[in-house]
Amino acid sequence: MIVSSDRVLSNRPFNDAPIGIFDSGFGGLTVAREIAKELPEESIVYFGDTARCPYGPRSQDEVDGFVQQICTWLVGRDVKLLVIACNTATAAGLEHAQQRFSIPVIGAVIPGARAAARATKNRRVGVIATKGTVESGCYPQAIRNIDAGITVFSTATPKFVDIVEQGIRMSRGPIEDLTSLASKVYIRPAFQEIARDYLEPLRRCEIDTLVLGCTHYPMLKALIGGVIGHNVLLVSSAEEMAKEVRETLSMRGELAHEGNIAKHEFFTSAPNLDEFQSFGSRVFSEPIERPTHIDLSRL
Amino acid sequence: MIVSSDRVLSNRPFNDAPIGIFDSGFGGLTVAREIAKELPEESIVYFGDTARCPYGPRSQDEVDGFVQQICTWLVGRDVKLLVIACNTATAAGLEHAQQRFSIPVIGAVIPGARAAARATKNRRVGVIATKGTVESGCYPQAIRNIDAGITVFSTATPKFVDIVEQGIRMSRGPIEDLTSLASKVYIRPAFQEIARDYLEPLRRCEIDTLVLGCTHYPMLKALIGGVIGHNVLLVSSAEEMAKEVRETLSMRGELAHEGNIAKHEFFTSAPNLDEFQSFGSRVFSEPIERPTHIDLSRL
Repeated sequence: MIVSSDRVLSNRPFNDAPIGIFDSGFGGLTVAREIAKELPEESIVYFGDTARCPYGPRSQDEVDGFVQQICTWLVGRDVKLLVIACNTATAAGLEHAQQRFSIPVIGAVIPGARAAARATKNRRVGVIATKGTVESGCYPQAIRNIDAGITVFSTATPKFVDIVEQGIRMSRGPIEDLTSLASKVYIRPAFQEIARDYLEPLRRCEIDTLVLGCTHYPMLKALIGGVIGHNVLLVSSAEEMAKEVRETLSMRGELAHEGNIAKHEFFTSAPNLDEFQSFGSRVFSEPIERPTHIDLSRL
Repeated sequence: MIVSSDRVLSNRPFNDAPIGIFDSGFGGLTVAREIAKELPEESIVYFGDTARCPYGPRSQDEVDGFVQQICTWLVGRDVKLLVIACNTATAAGLEHAQQRFSIPVIGAVIPGARAAARATKNRRVGVIATKGTVESGCYPQAIRNIDAGITVFSTATPKFVDIVEQGIRMSRGPIEDLTSLASKVYIRPAFQEIARDYLEPLRRCEIDTLVLGCTHYPMLKALIGGVIGHNVLLVSSAEEMAKEVRETLSMRGELAHEGNIAKHEFFTSAPNLDEFQSFGSRVFSEPIERPTHIDLSRL
């Protein structure tokens, strides 16, 4: 909160440049969707690095390299703000990107950590994420920076990413929750067994809040909620990230001007553009334009 | 960002217990005022430790002891959430209090750090605060946790507290800004000299955003803005703290019920209750009830 807003008022009060968003694939489109909903006048340039997906099992250094490469490409398209809509990429490359680029870079971890810290009542919070995210320790650190009295239990749940990928292929309708009854995707016994293996230890830790620390996981909320118990709050960061983008642009006087006709552009490193457009439209919850292929790995 | 709100809905959806707020004296009443404005149905128990004010020059250990003592007293009054409305006390005792008490404890540093990190454009942020707050390093740490690309310049400005204390005694009207023309408080040349001594080095660092890291400092915004330059954004945390309180209570299903008649109670460690009531009413911007004297130092 600003006690003197002279500076913002004296600069130009809007900026129609697009917001740059990227993810290792489709998952970040859940974040792009929330940003488009929260800020309908903002243009978006989305890059899905589907050719190199998943990032989860890769080393921090390798993922950091991808993050810097993609951010550089997005900055070259004159975006006004960068969103790393992927927890693994945030854990590996956020700080480096913030040090490197002169525009704000918003990651996935702090918004989710903040929501969990606010919500927990018994101050026992679980985090499920990819191996890379868990090993970085970024969630326990971010949560305990906000509230040092919270105990955090983290576990890597990489197979959930595969379940989502399979589920997207199996389902026909919208894919807000692939494991809900409405999605018509059968919750296979094998999926439930995987979920029990992963989540039973967290359940025994008596957590009351669980951070879904990967943009894919909200698509499994019925499966996860069924195993962890419906008394445990599930937290994802997409909506909180969209608020963070709005507040950052607003405080900098860099929202798009009122009435701006937003343009949403999609780029992917994978050559199969039909698949990206078809799956992407369902994750984004509305038809997306045909994406453009960019082979970043050959840059 | 809550993908399953079952838990909040299944628990009782409101909590009429008061919010506990404390400060070393009157300064925190600016925070209490914002909370009362943002959440008019919430009861408040305010404790001003005026007898031991100022905290700024004291050791971290001593202030930490005060924080734990006052929080224990407030928890004994069945508050549902604690607000440390003092930067020095936050720096010295927030983490300890969070580890010790089972209710949420909200400090002054993170909300101000977040606002500054969002606002800066050239990513050069200044912080002015008491000696204790600056020496703790809490602001640079909190700001760089949010954006690792920001350079923070901090400086202790303890005499600003004395100027505010003098100003409150000299002024007759409301004291939103003691150094504005409207306040009818003469900006003494001596005050301007002190401000120049403190702020000139920060001005030369080319900061574009300045955190007022003490609840007293917003009352000097005309003086500070005049020296640092009106192109520098001044950030204080009172309003941002009030939002943090609202979002925390809302996410926990612990807001007061609609239509709750809020009660505002005031306590102070200083024996001069008339002075507390008279100055307090002007800082709180509306008449406060006669405070009750509590001698915590003898507990």
